[in-house]
Formats: sequence, structure tokens, C-alpha cells
Amino acid sequence: MRAAVVGSTGYGGIELVRLLHAHPRVGLASVMSSSQADAALSEAYPHVAGVADATLEAIDPARVRERADVVFLATPHGVSAQWAPKFAAEGLAVIDLSGDFRLKSAEAYRAYYGHEPADPVYVEKAVYGLPELFGQDIVEATFIANPGCYPTAAALAVAPLAAAGWIDPDSVIIDAKSGVSGAGRGLSLAVHFSEVNENVTAYKVNRHQHTPEIEQTIERLVGRPVAVTFTPHLVPMTRGILCTVYASLTERRTTEEAIELYRQYYEGRPFVRIRPPGRMPATKEVLGSNFCDIGLSVDARTRRVTVVSVIDNLVKGAAGQAVQNLNVMMGWDETEGLMFVPLYP
Amino acid sequence: MRAAVVGSTGYGGIELVRLLHAHPRVGLASVMSSSQADAALSEAYPHVAGVADATLEAIDPARVRERADVVFLATPHGVSAQWAPKFAAEGLAVIDLSGDFRLKSAEAYRAYYGHEPADPVYVEKAVYGLPELFGQDIVEATFIANPGCYPTAAALAVAPLAAAGWIDPDSVIIDAKSGVSGAGRGLSLAVHFSEVNENVTAYKVNRHQHTPEIEQTIERLVGRPVAVTFTPHLVPMTRGILCTVYASLTERRTTEEAIELYRQYYEGRPFVRIRPPGRMPATKEVLGSNFCDIGLSVDARTRRVTVVSVIDNLVKGAAGQAVQNLNVMMGWDETEGLMFVPLYP
Amino acid sequence: MRAAVVGSTGYGGIELVRLLHAHPRVGLASVMSSSQADAALSEAYPHVAGVADATLEAIDPARVRERADVVFLATPHGVSAQWAPKFAAEGLAVIDLSGDFRLKSAEAYRAYYGHEPADPVYVEKAVYGLPELFGQDIVEATFIANPGCYPTAAALAVAPLAAAGWIDPDSVIIDAKSGVSGAGRGLSLAVHFSEVNENVTAYKVNRHQHTPEIEQTIERLVGRPVAVTFTPHLVPMTRGILCTVYASLTERRTTEEAIELYRQYYEGRPFVRIRPPGRMPATKEVLGSNFCDIGLSVDARTRRVTVVSVIDNLVKGAAGQAVQNLNVMMGWDETEGLMFVPLYP
Amino acid sequence: MRAAVVGSTGYGGIELVRLLHAHPRVGLASVMSSSQADAALSEAYPHVAGVADATLEAIDPARVRERADVVFLATPHGVSAQWAPKFAAEGLAVIDLSGDFRLKSAEAYRAYYGHEPADPVYVEKAVYGLPELFGQDIVEATFIANPGCYPTAAALAVAPLAAAGWIDPDSVIIDAKSGVSGAGRGLSLAVHFSEVNENVTAYKVNRHQHTPEIEQTIERLVGRPVAVTFTPHLVPMTRGILCTVYASLTERRTTEEAIELYRQYYEGRPFVRIRPPGRMPATKEVLGSNFCDIGLSVDARTRRVTVVSVIDNLVKGAAGQAVQNLNVMMGWDETEGLMFVPLYP
Repeated sequence: MRAAVVGSTGYGGIELVRLLHAHPRVGLASVMSSSQADAALSEAYPHVAGVADATLEAIDPARVRERADVVFLATPHGVSAQWAPKFAAEGLAVIDLSGDFRLKSAEAYRAYYGHEPADPVYVEKAVYGLPELFGQDIVEATFIANPGCYPTAAALAVAPLAAAGWIDPDSVIIDAKSGVSGAGRGLSLAVHFSEVNENVTAYKVNRHQHTPEIEQTIERLVGRPVAVTFTPHLVPMTRGILCTVYASLTERRTTEEAIELYRQYYEGRPFVRIRPPGRMPATKEVLGSNFCDIGLSVDARTRRVTVVSVIDNLVKGAAGQAVQNLNVMMGWDETEGLMFVPLYP
Repeated sequence: MRAAVVGSTGYGGIELVRLLHAHPRVGLASVMSSSQADAALSEAYPHVAGVADATLEAIDPARVRERADVVFLATPHGVSAQWAPKFAAEGLAVIDLSGDFRLKSAEAYRAYYGHEPADPVYVEKAVYGLPELFGQDIVEATFIANPGCYPTAAALAVAPLAAAGWIDPDSVIIDAKSGVSGAGRGLSLAVHFSEVNENVTAYKVNRHQHTPEIEQTIERLVGRPVAVTFTPHLVPMTRGILCTVYASLTERRTTEEAIELYRQYYEGRPFVRIRPPGRMPATKEVLGSNFCDIGLSVDARTRRVTVVSVIDNLVKGAAGQAVQNLNVMMGWDETEGLMFVPLYP
Repeated sequence: MRAAVVGSTGYGGIELVRLLHAHPRVGLASVMSSSQADAALSEAYPHVAGVADATLEAIDPARVRERADVVFLATPHGVSAQWAPKFAAEGLAVIDLSGDFRLKSAEAYRAYYGHEPADPVYVEKAVYGLPELFGQDIVEATFIANPGCYPTAAALAVAPLAAAGWIDPDSVIIDAKSGVSGAGRGLSLAVHFSEVNENVTAYKVNRHQHTPEIEQTIERLVGRPVAVTFTPHLVPMTRGILCTVYASLTERRTTEEAIELYRQYYEGRPFVRIRPPGRMPATKEVLGSNFCDIGLSVDARTRRVTVVSVIDNLVKGAAGQAVQNLNVMMGWDETEGLMFVPLYP
Repeated sequence: MRAAVVGSTGYGGIELVRLLHAHPRVGLASVMSSSQADAALSEAYPHVAGVADATLEAIDPARVRERADVVFLATPHGVSAQWAPKFAAEGLAVIDLSGDFRLKSAEAYRAYYGHEPADPVYVEKAVYGLPELFGQDIVEATFIANPGCYPTAAALAVAPLAAAGWIDPDSVIIDAKSGVSGAGRGLSLAVHFSEVNENVTAYKVNRHQHTPEIEQTIERLVGRPVAVTFTPHLVPMTRGILCTVYASLTERRTTEEAIELYRQYYEGRPFVRIRPPGRMPATKEVLGSNFCDIGLSVDARTRRVTVVSVIDNLVKGAAGQAVQNLNVMMGWDETEGLMFVPLYP
């Protein structure tokens, strides 16, 4: 299997290079960049020298078709909307990491992204690639919208409760804490070390574009429209997302029962690990890996459940899940090339 | 005015030394430590050499009485319960930074602290020292229970809404993110750099001892029992707490109305700063200072309000608030010795 | 005394605002910015709201003269070269924090800064403001070139040995580690959190512009030309510089003798603190303060001495030293407004 | 090939578990711990759950012999001295990560480690496992003393210059900056987050136990006794060491010539990467990998060369090099199981 990566000089793209280099069934046929064509990848990222270096190429779907079977787009929203259909039109399987093909509602896209959505033919065609929830769709897909980092951590945290009808879905509050790499390699005061270090802040409160994506997933599970509260925070670390999810239980349940529900729901899903009672996961426990670790606590006093989920935003929240989607698409074991031990400490 | 500090080798104690050194009306008469008597304070903390050094003394209420008018106890819970009454019995004004005299309910103390509460005579006598909410009580106090770090940030975030009856108090969810210094200078894996750095985790979920303290304050404001959800998280920074508070509005309100409510509620309170619409505070914006900065956002979709408050856990969350309490007790301007510009960046 | 600050929206400028706010003898008459005139300072820096806010003004020497007695320029090199003479021509005392007036050699300036030096009349007039070494010059100065951050830490570390003739000055190697704030608030990949965090790197090896500034100071002390090795490193913290200085001793000496030399040399200099044998300073022990702490170790095996000095790069390395220079210029106690306890932890 | 790991609950041990899990030719037969036998490894390290978990066993050389061919000791110095000979006596190949078998000089061991050295029979037998310098010795070894983290980074930085006779070996000064994980998982104030974060310090100046180990390597290359200066520093990051090495050139050389010397010296050595002129490596560029990246700069003014080397202290500085040694011992490709792309950012 030969793969191509578009947008290789962003953090999502370079993480794809790392993961595909370690994949036993995939070879990297082309790494493309709109801004740095003809330069060595190691110019931008010296860490790949001698192990996964390559010459960056201009983006050219027709040329890619001759050399690759699947293309990963790690391009920003707006840019993916333009390129992904062209690759698909060449007959390539497409896995797009941007937000451009995730939302089925054009209205929601406009409201949260602030510009026109992608070609509705491809939005319709795109399969939302969250394997633990919608794996069956992926098996037959050729065009995958890879989920956002926050929506991955949030959806995996809330899905078993929502699907089982144990909670009021409109009571869901997601308080997310993210490392800075989620903002990408672009420059802004929001990623300036002296501003971010020793600092925590909330941003885009009640207006983050991942809100409708989270709601869309919950709606598929409960079968009706929902409105949730989602607050992203920036914490002074590079990688990792921790979601703390709060929801009101419709009936009395214990922590043990909730944990058992999750264990059953994620049975046979190697990338989701459920902590035993009294233990909560930490982001560092999944660093560099495709795991999503989850802990639960039910409070009898308030009849609320608290779910804590952690992922590496660049792996399970981006490039790792994209490779997992490829594995599922191809009918391979979904852990192929991804079953690393996290880097700890 | 002459002050003494007990527990000077902890982070709360050494922060009192810093703040009292800068106070124009207070002299530091004695710094005491149970463990390191006769050593120089600069042995444990080289940063005070040449500016605020002193010889540590054993804890001795009778000797302190001869030299000081007020004593600050920066000792752990359990230890304060033993010493604070002895200082009070000597006629000294007492400001205790531990949790031992904050909870009026002995039952709640036992349930969350796991041991017997302090002498009920002093628990009764103790005034809860949150000047922005209960300043009038403090004016006449001689024994003050200085609030916890999380309860300070949480109470200041929720008080105007609770007092105005705009929210259902039982809907309150407090998601708090704290720097590591809140755990003190003691050694444990939970403060080991290699474990904490590049890591976020939730701890003591649904069982943290600050939960009943937060509830007690809200109950005073709304006049009935409440149960809230409180989740503390550890983030990889030294100082700072950010509380994200969620609550359901009883009626439709706008962000602008909520901000106006807060501005009026904290009118004349120099340490509380309300951000304009669309801006949220960051912990670094209060670093080293006694400020509590607050931002608000109302979501019409969910009819919930999100309040974000930030403090420096060692200043407004501990030593700074203790000095502010002294100022109020003495009838001085409450900003005396505390009106620093935060250290930024 | 009324002071004005030019370049208030940089880190050096905002630190001057913090320090001048706390100064008992100085009022802040004007804060100027070339880029953001008419905006509130708190727009760029919310942390000053309610305590040291002001409206930014355009840079206008004639207007400043009517309202201020001294002007601090916290502008980049190149910019200071243009503005500082204009303020001086209006009769204002000038304290310039850039590198434009530090180097007496136009050749060295050109070689290391890469452009033409400032007007030689003012380069000649400028007094190099390192009070612990050249305090007498400052007393009579009206135009001060405030030293660079690295040169301050390096010069204070090496001066007693150089002045006493204990070392071969050409053997001096300065290995410096700096926090990121020294690079300012401007945007670049070199200050991007995800690139800097969990990372250490050396930069501008053998070509940093502070090299000739360090040499110029040593040359004044030893009376002949010297060439030293200076290597700056970036470490993942916001504030602080640690210089490790190596030099070959001309005769056998002990650590105790070296420490005694330093104690005598810095006698009566409150901002330099010498550690006892076996103890080395840490940057955090001077955080937010104007101290320079120094530790020493002589190695009999190699006959080399190792000197470790630490400063807060924005205080003793920039704004604090500028205020100290003002104090000395005015004949005030040099600690006026500067004798804080460092912020620890 | 079946391997056993002793000291699995330390950072070196758990890193061995990570690397051996990814090794295509090695199976993990036993993980041992003196303190936590019978517990699951995932109790101490939740990140291995579901991927590399195991039950910890008591240390028992006879039992290990039945199940393994090679044993890695990731135990502290003093402990390895006791256990390593027992495993060797059982006929197992031994790779010891402690300092107990590295120094051939008993006198140096006593002077720097402060206690008696290990059995001289095994000290004599032990091969110093630095494959890029002494690979031929390793091929025939059955008992390997795996180098220290600092000595690895320092020796690889200085070896080509020393071996070529380009420098005066007694002029060598090594200024090293290390992340905190090098200090292990044990508790002390020196690894307390609030003390280490936003802080840089030097420690064990002129008395660190890696000094004689570095000298021993240089002495093998130059054929005579040398005395170098070595200063370790602690920087606020988890992983990584950067060594800045200074040495006086015996003749005029250029940066380009020095780089060419290094390229030739490390020809065919896949884990050493030499940067082109003007580029210096950063620790993050080797994170999680077995690479040692090196940059060079010659200063014609001082006739000194500055060499900067970086490694991940837990990989090339410990567990990775141990696995590399196993590969070389076994006659496998030395990159087997180790040719990862570093984790960036």
C-alpha cells in the first residue's frame, strides 16, 4: 500500500510521517506541501533526517495517482475543501484530517467556521471516521472525514452513556483541556511560549467549531437533536487532551455499574482502556500513542456522572486515528502499526 | 503592628513572609517552624537571603504574645486545630490558613477530612475570611478561618449569580485547574516533576475536601442546602487556579447582563476585576497578585452561563487573602501592601 | 520625579511599568508605543487593569519634555538609535535598554548587529549602566546605556576574578542558559511553545551580539583586549538567566578564597548575593527581583574556577537595572523601589 | 531471544519495557522489582495496560535462567554490584545500566561514588558498551557496562576531535543540561515540580560521578591521563540532555573541516547525525529515539571549537543504548527495533 501525505509541514502531517514510517503495510510515496515544494522535509523538521526524510513536492493529484493508493490531507479547513475532491476524482482513497467534511449540516458549518462549506456531494459521501463508534461505515468507505481532536475525546467519553439512555443528553457539559500543539505550527500570540507557559486559559467559550461536531455524534447515538456545552482550555503542555464530561443520570447508578457499561461497550476495542474504580487517567499515560483512556465517577449526592477521557491530540486526535481508519478501510487489524507503548515519562 | 508566622517553611508561610515584608504597616516579629527551629530561613529558602531572612523559632504561644499582635498559621489541617486555640487563648488575633476552622458542620468535616474536627468553641468563633462576600463579619473578628484556594476562586465566580437568584444553585458544576504549588512542599509522586510535567489529570473526583466549603458559602447566599459538583485538576504549572463554573439560568439572560450584574456586585472591591464581553481571564494575568479576574459567557442555546475565574492560589488563595483579612480586621484600606502589578510574563 | 516609558508594549517596557508603579519616588507620566497609540495598555496586557493602566501615546519627545524628567527607552536596537538622541536633545535624562549605545567600538557594532551604529556623539556620551562595576560614572550621567541581560550576568560573574588578576581573561568561557522572554513578544518559530517546550538548544554560537559587550567590560577591568567564548542557550522557562563561567586560574586558589574575594568585591552592593561554599544559585531564587546571585567552585585538578550567576533577565537584566540606574543617577538609595522578596516558588 | 528486566519500576526499566516491546527479535520473559513483586506493572505505570503489562516478580537469578537468555539491570549503583555477578554466574548475558561496572579504576569509583566498588573480577570482565566508539569489544562481550547518560553525550561529542589529535584534551570543558528524568522516580526536593519548574541550576559542580567516566573514555582515545571540567545542570523538562563541549584547537581549523571530520568518524553509524554548518541540534529533535545529534562551530578568534550534542537520556543515554548493545552482541543490525522517528513536537 502506498500512501501520500498533503500538508506535511504541519504537526498533523509530520505525525503522519512518523506513524506511516512505522507501519508494516504502508510505504510513503509522496509528501506534499503547498509552501515548501522541493525542499527537504528535514529542513523544516531536522528530527526526520536519516530516518524518514523526503523531498517535499507540490500538490498534484494526477501525479499522486500514479504513485499512491491513498492520500491523507493534513491541510487546514478551507484548503481541504478544495483539494480533497480532486484527489477523490482521481480515484484515490481520501482521508481528510480537516473539519471540512465532518458536519453534515451546511448551516452548522457556516455558523461555526464562518465560510461556505465544501462541495455537498463530497460532504454527503464522507464517512465520519470514529472507528469505535461507527466502524462498520468505515469498512466500506473511500472518503473519510477524520474526527477532530476534541470531538474524539468527548465522543468516546460520552457515547456509552448516551447510547444506553442513562443520561439526559442535553445535560452534557464538556470541559476540555488541551496542549498547545492542537493549534498547529502557525505563529500567533496564543502559542507564544512566554504567554502560554505557566498559564491556563479558556478560549472560544460557547463558540468553538467542535461543538456541532460533538453534538452530531451524540445525536446519532440518541436519535434526536441535542445541545451541549463545550469549553476548550489551553494548558501549558505540548501534547494531550483531557475531557471532563458531566451529565445528569436519569436513574440512580453506581460508579461500578458505569464502569461495567463502558467495559462492555468498548469490548474488543483495543485503543480504549477503562480505568478501575477510584483511578482517573492522565494525558501523559497515552503520550505518543493511539489510546483513549477513560475513568468514571458517579456522585450519588448530585446524581451526576463525571467521565474523564484522555488522548494524544496528534495521535488518536488526528494522525493515529487516520491510520486506524486506513487499517479498518483495508480490512487489516485496526492496531496495525499503532500498538506502541506510550512514551512515559 | 507586629505579626508572627507559624509554618514558615511551607509555601503558604514563605509567601506570607514575602507579602508581610512589603507591607507598610506590619513588621515580622517571629517566624516559626516545628521542624527546623534555630535554622536560618534562608537555609530552606535561599531567595530570602539579604532581604527577609530570619532565624526560625520553635512554636511557643506565650513567647509570641510578648512580641506580636497577630499570628498567621500556615500549618496543615490537624496541626492548626491544635495550635490556633492556644494562640487565641494568649490574646493574639489569629488568622488560620488551614481547613480546620472553615466548616461549621462537624459532620462535613469528618466526612471529607477523615478525622475529628477542632474544638467547637473555636470553630464557632472563627469568621470565614472572604472579604468580598463577608467583609462585615471580618471587621469585628479576632479569629479568622482563611478560605481555601479553590473555594475562593469558586465562590467569587458564583456568588453574584447565586445571590441574585439567577441560577439554580444545584446545577452548579465547578471544573477547577490548579498549579502544583497548591499541594505544598511535601514530597510525593503527585508532585514529581517527571510525572506532572506535560500532563493533566483529575484527582479526588467527587470527594475533595473543598466541596463542602464551597457549598457552605453558596448556602449562605441562597439560604438553603445545596449540592454542587466540584472537580479539581492538576496542570503543569507552579501557581494559579482557573475555575470554570457552569450553571443553569432560571430565566433568559445575556452575557452583557451577567457582566453588568458582576460589575455591580463587586463595585468598590479592588481585587475583583471583571473582563468585558468576549474576553476571558488567564491565570498568568494575576500571577503574584491578590486579584481575582472573572469573565462570563451566556449560551442562549443551552440557557447555561459559563463563568471563568482566576487567582494566584498562594496569594488570593492563601497568603494574600490572609493579609487582606488583616487589613480589614484592622480597619485599614484592604489593599494596603497588596496592590502589586502581577508578574507578567 | 516623573518618568516616561517608550516601547511599553514589549516585555521590557511592561516590566518598567510594573517596577515604576511600585517605586515610591517616581510617577509614570507617559507610556508610549509606536504601534498602538490611543489604545489602553490593558488591551495588550490585561494584567495591568485597575492597577497600572494608562492610555498609550504616540512617541513625541517635545510633549514628553513637558511632563517628564526621565525617559526609559525599551525599544529594539535600531529604533533606540533614532529616538534616544531626540529625547536627550529635549533635555530629558535618557536610560536606553537597547544595545545601540553600549558598544564604544563602531566596528564591533557593525560586525555583530549588522547595521550602522547610532550617532557617535551619543555613543560617546552614553554611560554603561552597570552600577556594581561602574557606579561612579552613573552618578554624573544623563544618558545611560543599560546593559544587556547576558552581559549583566556574565560581567558580575567574572569581574572580581578579572579585576584581581586571578585568571587568564582569554581563557574565559561563558555558557549561558536563558528563558524565552529574553526574545521579546514578537512572533517566530523560536518562541513557539510547541517548539520550545521540553527542549534545549544553543543558538547564535560564536556570533551573538552580546559577545563584544562582555569583552568590553572585561577589557575595562584588565586594561587590555580580550577574546572570550560565549554560548547562549534557550531553555523552556519564561524568565531567568544562568551563566556558567569557566576560567583558568593563574595561581592555585581554593573555593573559599574565591568566595572571600567575591564577598569583598561586592561588599555594600545589596543586589549581589554570594552563596556559601558548596551551594549554587538557581534562577528561581531571583525571580521577579533585581538580585544577582553567585556561587563558586575551584577545581584543583584542572586549576579552573567555575562561577555560576543567576538573574531575572527582565529585572536585573533589563528593567530593574534601569530603575537601579535611575536611583544611582538621582543620588537615591540604589535599592529604592527594588528591594522585593523574589517570587518563590 | 528472551530478555528479563530487573528494576522495572524505575524510569530506565520501564523504558526498556517500551523498547523491548517494539523489538522484533526479543520477547520479554520477566520483569522484576525488589519492591513490588506480585503487583501488576500497570499498577505503577498505567500506560502499559493492555499493551505491555506483566506481573512483577521478585529478583531470582536461578529462575530467570530458565526463562531468559539476557538480563538487563536497571538498578541503582550499589544494587547492580550485588545482583549482576549472580546473573552472570547463572550463564546469562548481562547488560547493566548502573555505574557499578563502568570505571576500571577502583580509586576513581571510591572517590566519586563514596563506597566500595563491585567485585573486581566482574569490573575487569565488563565491556564498556558505547557502540560507536568501542563496537568491536561489544561483539564478543557477555557482560556489558552500559554507559551513563552524560558520558554518552559527552564522549560522542568529543571523540572525533580527541582521536584525531585536533584538541588539547586537558582543555575540554563539558557544560551539560539535563531533563529531570535522569534523576529517576525517587522522591526529593530536587525533583519537586514547584522547585524545578521555571528554574535552572547547576549541581554537583566539580564532583559529579560521571566525570571520571568521561575522562576514562577520552584517555582510551588519546592514550594518556586527562582531567576535564564537567558541569551538569538541571533544566525544566522531562527528557533530554544537551552537552556543550569546549576545547582548544592545536591548529587552525574551520567549522567545515570539523564537520567533515565528524562525518567521516561516524560514517556508517546510523544513530549519530551531524548537522550542517550553521545549524545546531535541539534535544526535542531526538525525543524518544536512540539518535545522538551533533553540531559544531569553530571560533577563529579564540581558536576554540564548540561542539553541541543532544540525546534522549532515557534512550541513547540508557535503555536504547542497552538494546543497541544487545543488537551488537547478537550480531544483529544495530538499529533493530530502534529506528523510530523521534516524537516531535
